This record gives sequence, C-alpha cells and structure tokens, in this order.
Amino acid sequence: MPISLKQVFGVCGLIASLSIGDQIWAQDLESEVIRSEQASFTVDTVGDGFEIPWSMTFVSADTALVGEREAGRLSLLSVSSGHKISIAGLPDMLRNNERSSGLFDVKIHPDFLTNGWVYLAYGVGSETSNGLGVSRCQLVEASLDRCEKLYESGGKIDGKWHFGGRLVLSDGYMFISTGDGYDFSALAQDLSSPVGKILRLYDDGRIPEDNPYVGQTGKLPEIWSYGVRNPQGMALNHRTGEVWHNEHGPQGGDEVNISRAGVNYGWPIITYGEEYGGGPIGDGITHQDGMAQPTYYWVPSIAPSGMTFYSGDKFPGWQTSVFVGALAKTHINRLVIEENRILHEERLLVDKGWRVRFIEQGPDGYLYFGVDDGMIMRLVPAE
Amino acid sequence: MPISLKQVFGVCGLIASLSIGDQIWAQDLESEVIRSEQASFTVDTVGDGFEIPWSMTFVSADTALVGEREAGRLSLLSVSSGHKISIAGLPDMLRNNERSSGLFDVKIHPDFLTNGWVYLAYGVGSETSNGLGVSRCQLVEASLDRCEKLYESGGKIDGKWHFGGRLVLSDGYMFISTGDGYDFSALAQDLSSPVGKILRLYDDGRIPEDNPYVGQTGKLPEIWSYGVRNPQGMALNHRTGEVWHNEHGPQGGDEVNISRAGVNYGWPIITYGEEYGGGPIGDGITHQDGMAQPTYYWVPSIAPSGMTFYSGDKFPGWQTSVFVGALAKTHINRLVIEENRILHEERLLVDKGWRVRFIEQGPDGYLYFGVDDGMIMRLVPAE
Repeated sequence: MPISLKQVFGVCGLIASLSIGDQIWAQDLESEVIRSEQASFTVDTVGDGFEIPWSMTFVSADTALVGEREAGRLSLLSVSSGHKISIAGLPDMLRNNERSSGLFDVKIHPDFLTNGWVYLAYGVGSETSNGLGVSRCQLVEASLDRCEKLYESGGKIDGKWHFGGRLVLSDGYMFISTGDGYDFSALAQDLSSPVGKILRLYDDGRIPEDNPYVGQTGKLPEIWSYGVRNPQGMALNHRTGEVWHNEHGPQGGDEVNISRAGVNYGWPIITYGEEYGGGPIGDGITHQDGMAQPTYYWVPSIAPSGMTFYSGDKFPGWQTSVFVGALAKTHINRLVIEENRILHEERLLVDKGWRVRFIEQGPDGYLYFGVDDGMIMRLVPAE
Repeated sequence: MPISLKQVFGVCGLIASLSIGDQIWAQDLESEVIRSEQASFTVDTVGDGFEIPWSMTFVSADTALVGEREAGRLSLLSVSSGHKISIAGLPDMLRNNERSSGLFDVKIHPDFLTNGWVYLAYGVGSETSNGLGVSRCQLVEASLDRCEKLYESGGKIDGKWHFGGRLVLSDGYMFISTGDGYDFSALAQDLSSPVGKILRLYDDGRIPEDNPYVGQTGKLPEIWSYGVRNPQGMALNHRTGEVWHNEHGPQGGDEVNISRAGVNYGWPIITYGEEYGGGPIGDGITHQDGMAQPTYYWVPSIAPSGMTFYSGDKFPGWQTSVFVGALAKTHINRLVIEENRILHEERLLVDKGWRVRFIEQGPDGYLYFGVDDGMIMRLVPAE
C-alpha cells in the first residue's frame, strides 16, 4: 500500500523531526557572483558533512534523499535549513572503501507522489566476488520499508572500483549502468556477463520482451547496450526520451554516449584513451565497424560523474545543456546539445578544487551538486 | 592554352631560377617532438620572412604559392630549400593595412595540372567603398598571365576588416566567403547584398542555375548561404563533398558551420558571442526559428582562420579531423568529426604564441601553416 506524501511530510511528520537530526547546519551563502557564458549565478551551500555524497533525489519541494557511497548511508536533507537525518532500513550491501563499493544511486519513481517508491543501487556480494544490486523501498518517516530486490547481477567478479551504479527511471523502465570492475574489461564485450553494460528492466524488475537479446542463447536478456567501461553518470534526455550515459576512459577517452538498444560502445576494443602511464590499449584503435563512436569525448580525462539534462526555468540559457560532474578535473561540465550533437563545452567552477560526484536538478529549477569535501551545493541565478 | 607543369617546373625552369630569388633560407628543423592525442610530430620551418602570410597552395610536389595579405604579394616557395621568388602580374587590388585588405586566398584549380589555373581572391574598390574580387590566371615562369576577373562584389561598402576572402574549388564550382565589413552586420541578413555570405559560382564565374535565389526579385543569384560574420576559413570536406566554413564571432561565439544552400547562419540575430567589452548583441539570443545552430562553437573566441580537412596518410590518427588556425588563442585547433558532428576538440602548439593564418595539407601529406611572425611551417610525424 503506497503511502502518501502527506503522511511522510505532514505538519507532524518528518520535516518537524529534522530539527532533532544529528547535525544543525548554519546556511552559508557564498556571495560571489560567477559570470558564465549563458548565466550568472551564485553557489549556495545547502548541506555539509557528507562522506563522498554520491546521489541526491528530491522527495518534496524542500527535502531530498542524499546517499553516501562507502558509508552506505542515506539521509534526508532539508535544503532550506540544512537539517539532516539518517534513514534506517537500507538493504544489506557490500560496503568496502578499498573497492569503492557501497550505496550508489538513489532515485524516486516518476510516480513517487502516489506510489512512494525509492530506488537504490548498491554493491552486493563479498570483497572478492561482487556485483550490483537494485532494490526499491517505500519511505515511512525516517525508515525504508517494504524493500524488494529487483535486480542482482549474476556472474560476480573480483571487481575493484568501476561498479557503475547509476539508475534512470522513465516511462515504465529502469536503466542500470554497470562498470567493468577495472580488471574485467574483456567482459564488457561479452553478452553473457552483466559487466560493462547498460541494462534495461521494467521498473518492477521484469525483463522487457523487446530488449535486444531476449531469448538469444548465451546472452543476458537484461542487456540494453554494451562495451562500456565505468559509467558513473546516466540521465534521461527529456527532449528526446532517450537515455544518455557517460563513462570514465582509462587515461584519456572519457565519453558521452546515447544509450541505444544493442549498440556496442567499443570498450576495450576502441578507445580514445591509453593505459595509465602511457601506451596503447589493445590495438590502440579508435574506430571499428560495428562499434559506435561516442557522442562526445574528453582527452585528457575529466573523470565524469553524475549527469543531468537541465529542464528548468531558472536558467533559460541552459535549457539545451547537459551537465556532468568532473572528479579529476574538478568542475561542472556543461555541454550544449543540438539534435543529439554536442556544439560546445563550458567548464564551470574550475578553480574551486571540488570533486563533483553528482549533479541533479531540484524541483525549484536550481542545480544541486555534491562534492567529496562533503558539501551539497546549488547554483542559483544571480539577481 | 593551358601550360604544362613540365613547362613551369622543368629542369631548366622555375625551380632552378628559385636559387636566384631574393632570399636564401637555411633550413632550421626544430627537434622537439610534440606528443599529441593521436600523433607525435615535429615542427619544421620551411620558409620565413613573409608579412602576414594568408594563403598557400601547392603547384608541384615541392613548390607552393604563398600569398601575403596587406603586401598583396604572391611568391613561389620551395619547401625543400626555403628559396622563394616573387610572382609578377597580379590583378589590381585594394591594399590597405588599416582595412586589413589586400590579397586573400590563393588556390589552384582541381585540374591545374592540365589547365594551369590559379585563383585569387582580393580586396577591390577604394578605402571607403570596397568589396571582394576573384580572378583566375595562369602561371608562366614567375608571372601570372591571362588573368580574367570572375567575380566582383556589387553594393560596395565602407568596410573595414571582415572581408572574408576564402575560396574553395570543387566539382566545377567555386565557393567564396565574404565578411560583414565589421560595421555592416545587418547586411548579412539582406539577400540583395553580397556582404556576410557564402557565394557559389561555377568555376568560370557563371551562376549555377540551381543556386537557391536564382530568379528571385531582390536577391542575388550568387548567394549560397547567409548570416555570416567574418569567415576566414572555408574548406571542402572530402568525405562528404560539402563545404564547411568557420567565422569569427564578436566577443565569443566563433563558429564552424556546414555551408548548405539557402541556410541562414543567423548573424547578427543569433550568436553565442557578445559585444566587445560585454553586453548583448541585439536581443542577446542564441536560437531562432529559421536560423541554423552552428556545427560547433568556441567561447571564448579563438579567432579562427584558415581551415583544412586532413586526408593524407602521414597522420593516420587525424583522418577524421578538420584543422583550424587560431589567431587570438594562438594554436592549431583539431576538431574530430563523425558524421557531421564534432566529437572532440584538441589544441596543438598552444604555447608557441603563433598567430596561425592558414593551414593546408601538402601533396606530401604534411600539414603546412603560416604565422604572423612570417614563418611557413609544417607538421611532420616524429620517427
């Protein structure tokens, strides 16, 4: 039985309880106005004290769930007050700092207001035999309830880093990005393995019968596209209805791709990157028949993280843009889109040293992002 | 009667005479190996002492015509020896340093080996009433002969800078880029003016009957596309047969476009740039119905100059690239193309301070470029 938002966030409900959370935070507005190509903005800090905040999804106008990766912790954050409170009842997960595993993406269902579903992607298995799990739960006060596991990867690997773990929920479907486990790049070309793929399920976990490999011997029916390395960003392009993903290349060759049924994005056969420290990967080629060129790529690597297409009214000049967080080259990357082409790249906040883990649009039309230093911040148009 | 290449460059012909040219140049190979994303190369200087070298076109394996803009001078340069000799018999032209007028592009006809035609674009008219002219001539020893004027712009303006002046000869056609004269941007939207346009003629100067405005009242039949600001680069994409042009934006908003029949590229109505010193241009908009988005754009401006698509075998990793010289942001810009999309940008030689005026592929597959400091150089693969 879905719970109503009123039950969760009613006058006597959660928002009130946030004031007894474990941290009271004093709002600290940075007054510096930053002029960029199509917008002038300030950066507000709306939350602090998170350990590698990796995901954020709003459950009301003011309140968002924020996930922390290795801690495997989920909190509700009031972005107007900075109060936060931890959420209990998360699924069991593999939390391992050295493997960069824990809680990955958190997203609400598009019909959250009526069905209350929160989706979580997280590491599963053991340190040396691991994979990705996805569950959905309902939020009741400060707990997750009625959790059901919708997906757990078979063919577990001794993966370190590169779990993937982004989710997109759209139009009845759930897309899941999975990484190559760092040492298992060959499996990204193997359709019997879930490693290095974009998966598509119905949002209740069933297999869509029109997935490209349904009923084919030796191929997993959940695979949507493949040949992916380390996809830490995935988002719905609201203008086209298609899902885009990005991926870390090795040294160089970070990519943005449009995730389409049955497409092979080429890792590790073709890449614009090279081995760490130099030297070609495989045959050192960038093109091969049957493998898609990226929509855009970065050399040198920026280390792309979360991604979002802007659809709000607060930044009219950004309505044809997709934003990508950058870890290594600390900044927020803005790509200008025209009919699935990238026309231009702008780098915002390059001088802050912020390793940006995710970027999400709030219901208020502001862009929220989280950084390794523990802050959740937002871009607000300058007056 | 066309002259044969043998007549011009035979044993007793021009190459021998180059040794009595006005400058003997000692080859100075820079030994530094530059590692870039898809190629390692050295930079060789093959000529020196030019005043704003603006164009280069090879007439034999070793010998190229080099044009200098304000000097209105054309020389033959032996790229193996560095010898050069001035060419006599150029058409009358408007040479004016303050107006940046003089000799613009120089190109050979695709059938030069049999017909001997050299095409020149240059300023015409007076300091305060000027435009663009195009002639073709035949090269006989160290002189141009049999010159015939194929085009002269009507509707002359008091233009300062922004003449355009690039030529592309392909498949029986001649494309001419014209600029907006700096003060006449509104004319870029006026189809009765040749200002701010890409023009298309047959390569003998006649109007192709399938040009988009042939026979339309108040519209010039030579116009191919319009809404262009300051197109100093234009080149044939050998993979598609289409002509691409670039243009300087104002402050920001430099563009690369694919020049197609009847397309309006939007200047000065839409632009990603702003007025020098800041402030919007017109309504400060970037999109409007009926006006094309660029294929790619740069903010801040790089000040793009000559452009060429690489088709040689010396740099296999560059065979899907278009190269653009950059004046303000001194470098050679490499854009990676996939099906008319730009996937990636790389900036080469950024630390040299070279204002690059043109870049052309030689018959040897090396990339030649000229800089304001007077040198003609080439990129050669490192061993």
